[in-house]
Formats: sequence, structure tokens, C-alpha cells
Amino acid sequence: MTYTTQTEADGAFDDVVERTVDALEAEGFGVLCDIDVRATFAEKLGEEFRQYRILGACNPQLAYDGLEAEIELGALLPCNVVVYERDDGTVVVSAVDPGRLVGIADNPDLDPITEDVSERFERVLDSL
Amino acid sequence: MTYTTQTEADGAFDDVVERTVDALEAEGFGVLCDIDVRATFAEKLGEEFRQYRILGACNPQLAYDGLEAEIELGALLPCNVVVYERDDGTVVVSAVDPGRLVGIADNPDLDPITEDVSERFERVLDSL
Repeated sequence: MTYTTQTEADGAFDDVVERTVDALEAEGFGVLCDIDVRATFAEKLGEEFRQYRILGACNPQLAYDGLEAEIELGALLPCNVVVYERDDGTVVVSAVDPGRLVGIADNPDLDPITEDVSERFERVLDSL
Repeated sequence: MTYTTQTEADGAFDDVVERTVDALEAEGFGVLCDIDVRATFAEKLGEEFRQYRILGACNPQLAYDGLEAEIELGALLPCNVVVYERDDGTVVVSAVDPGRLVGIADNPDLDPITEDVSERFERVLDSL
């Protein structure tokens, strides 16, 4: 079963990352976590890896509401948007499905929040 | 259904965070992401919130193996350990259950990796 929504984006990898961050900000998400997977593997393992970034996106109000409803929810936050290169060089932007992710918590109070995040992520991907 | 494993830790909040980071490092995890939830809510929303930190833990070799098995897996990484204060002031350390989290991907190739992460997280919690 799929747990992400994807889009292919035109342009160079770094440009796509920048546009993704801007689009997330336009939808009220701060990028609280930005992991350069390729650089991490090069540094820690001496392994070459494709271009791959993990952007941890957080809408403060929605995160606040979620944590008020469920204190353990931080174990699943932030919601990630990843940007990576396919083998053929295509740049893919892939957002986690917040419904699948937060669905692990099985708490119906979180449903309106995850639906809101999903709709915002859809608009982010559509804008790229 | 539960999606975290918890322990209560003695000591002041900041000490517990520091011991948790050290214990994660001793099990081969770098903390690639450290979100101060309380400071974020204060800054972005002007809301007071309990002490709450989200530590994104990544074992580079296990992450590498996981991403080689499933390229979209970054949408679920890193695995979080959260440290927060209960209403009564008790400090709780709570690790996401990697089997539940990565279980969303429904990819049996990832099972040995998530089992390895689970065992390491158990030792981290036991050490606190």
C-alpha cells in the first residue's frame, strides 16, 4: 500500500529543493529538519548515494493541536517531504501521506488535522 | 494500538535529553534532527507548552540499507525519540516503534532492519 504522494518536478535538484521549501512555507509549514542524505552517507559511511533530501515540515498550529490531542504524537512528527533523483536523473518530490502516518495512532481526534495537512501537501505538489 | 515504547527517567529535563542523546550515540545513532517543540510554539504561536523535544535518530548503515531496499523510505525517517514532561513533572522518554512506523511500507525486506533498530532503542531506554 502506498504511503506517499509523488510528483516529478522540472529543473535541477537544488532548484527543486528550494521551490519545495518555498511552496511548503506558502502553505504554512516551516522546515524544521533538513537532512542531506547523500552528504550524511558520504561523511559517515564513505558511500556514494543519489541526491536525496528529507525535509521535515511542520505547521505550528496543526502540530500544537495534534499534540494537545495526543501527547505521544511527536514520535511521528514532523511530516516529511523528500526530494530525490531517480536513476534516470528525474527529480521526484514525495510527501508522506499524513493519514497513513498518523493513522498508526488510531485516534479519530487527529483526523481533521491530518486531512488539513494532506490538502496542503497536495497543493504543494501541484505547485511544483 | 501503541506505537511507542516509553520509560520514565530520573533527573532534570535537560539532563535527560543529554543522556538520551549519549545513549543513542552509544547505539550507533546520530541525532540528525533536534526539534525544541516548546521553543517553536513560543516563537511561532506565542503559546506556552510543556518541555518537549523531538530527537530524530539515524543509524547511517541501517538507513542506507533501508533506502537501498526502498527508495521512498526517507518519507518515514529518521526514527524519533521524544523527551517530554508529564503534567506531574515526570520526564518521559518515548521511542517510536520502528516496526509500526516502517510497517506502513509493507515491505518484508525492511523487517530485519526495523528489528535491529527496535533492539537498539530498547537498550537506549533500558540505559536511562
